[in-house]
Amino acid sequence: MKNIETIANEYKKLQQAIIKTLEEADEKGKFRNDKWTSELGTGVTSVISDGAIIEKGAVNFSYVKGKFSSGMEKILGEKASQYSATGISSILHPHNPWMPIIHMNVRYFALDNGTSWFGGGIDLTPHYINTTDAADFHQTLKDICDQYNSTFYPDFKKRADEYFYLPHRNETRGIGGIFFDRLKPNEENSLETLFKFTVSLAKQYPVIYCNLMKKHGRRPFSSQEKEWQNLRRGRYVEFNLVHDRGTKFGLESGGNIESILVSLPASATWKYNYEPEPGSKEEQTLLVLKKGINWVDGKTIE
Amino acid sequence: MKNIETIANEYKKLQQAIIKTLEEADEKGKFRNDKWTSELGTGVTSVISDGAIIEKGAVNFSYVKGKFSSGMEKILGEKASQYSATGISSILHPHNPWMPIIHMNVRYFALDNGTSWFGGGIDLTPHYINTTDAADFHQTLKDICDQYNSTFYPDFKKRADEYFYLPHRNETRGIGGIFFDRLKPNEENSLETLFKFTVSLAKQYPVIYCNLMKKHGRRPFSSQEKEWQNLRRGRYVEFNLVHDRGTKFGLESGGNIESILVSLPASATWKYNYEPEPGSKEEQTLLVLKKGINWVDGKTIE
Repeated sequence: MKNIETIANEYKKLQQAIIKTLEEADEKGKFRNDKWTSELGTGVTSVISDGAIIEKGAVNFSYVKGKFSSGMEKILGEKASQYSATGISSILHPHNPWMPIIHMNVRYFALDNGTSWFGGGIDLTPHYINTTDAADFHQTLKDICDQYNSTFYPDFKKRADEYFYLPHRNETRGIGGIFFDRLKPNEENSLETLFKFTVSLAKQYPVIYCNLMKKHGRRPFSSQEKEWQNLRRGRYVEFNLVHDRGTKFGLESGGNIESILVSLPASATWKYNYEPEPGSKEEQTLLVLKKGINWVDGKTIE
Repeated sequence: MKNIETIANEYKKLQQAIIKTLEEADEKGKFRNDKWTSELGTGVTSVISDGAIIEKGAVNFSYVKGKFSSGMEKILGEKASQYSATGISSILHPHNPWMPIIHMNVRYFALDNGTSWFGGGIDLTPHYINTTDAADFHQTLKDICDQYNSTFYPDFKKRADEYFYLPHRNETRGIGGIFFDRLKPNEENSLETLFKFTVSLAKQYPVIYCNLMKKHGRRPFSSQEKEWQNLRRGRYVEFNLVHDRGTKFGLESGGNIESILVSLPASATWKYNYEPEPGSKEEQTLLVLKKGINWVDGKTIE
């Protein structure tokens, strides 16, 4: 039976394994490990800047403990006096508009009353949606989920659609992926099983991105395609600053601001009333930034 | 005695006067008036793109009526069934890093229970702080305020410092200005007086900016100075998406998304752990992005 100490140790090793895989594929960029300690705990913020393919990215690990506040009690509906939490979170922004932005998070949250759960997910935000890549991406996630529980993929895919969504734009952030939270060990899914599930996801994460890097990382692109990428990054900024719960929580709780906002792209643009040309590949992408698309089976809207 | 109808009409005329003054000073850019009507009311969103000096800006007018919801009741501590609101709001983002970003808003809010008030302000966000400009700017605002009530400038200046502040960065957005809300007509300040005060502000607004355009609008700048401008714009985006009440209210209430987010700059950048060189002019600016600076009297921190 695992405790949070051993889970944190394994996540910490995984962080460095992810970094190694990404550095090998980028061939130029190096992550810089910034270790930090605070009154809450410790962490390693690892940031890459100006790689050959990855323009800006981070793979962060943290392990913290603290008082279970009345605010947390209210939100989580749990009674406890202390919490511990450990996790890895990562975002990668590429230079190349043909490459997607990717995001991954796995985390374990334990209360001193004995309750604990996992949360996390992986999601993809292409600047241009490639339906083959989208099907591959979702199939890969489905395959991992199915190894653990056949309900995971359909449940968690739906939750990603709900979560990675900009209501003020009526657009999904990208093609989604999987998102889960409050996944508690029970008779069906042991703590060991759930932990292994998060490890499988975190291991697959750099593999998914490295395959995309090989395929699209060095493709030529026009200034118009770069412009579109910057507009899409504007939406990513809107999502992260307006909606993302992790960012909000971090900003409100006084977390390390540079570690929190490292998720923002190197640059972004906004144009008033911008609409892509009818029939353009930009419009094709916008048209499928919708919830409920069955990407695995060839993007039929459910 | 004015009613909201006549106030709205005068604000609407003022909007076009502001636009005219700005267009003349820019010499190239033209505002495009987009009239809109919705179930709530009417408005004119006027946007300028790619002027000679103004890169992106808007001067928006609106006049709306609606049900006074229980949410509004709670926030405002007032009981009523209907509200009406009219106002002008404007943001101007320049190309040139030596030029500041400027923001102005005047608004009138009236309830069907007879209560009404004005709100608004003007604030300046220089990319590089010029203390002469800062003193002139605050002196101009103080002079207008003093014509109406000697308590206005000290009160509203303090409120601007509090409002235009990024707690997660411990930085003010810029050098502040004045900010006021719930300014209700009373024995001391009649409705007519308060209305004239907002008109004086709205009239002075383009004059302030046109003077700055003459002084800095065509100054040469380096790519390093442009880079700094883009980083400062990143902070502007953070403020508007994370803190600004008007933006939040607009996004949550389902307002016209393009009119609301036209406040965002054309572009912005984020760098992990960026710190300006010690002694540089960038650091000099950062050091005075603080609350409580008495700009009029030569920037002594109170």
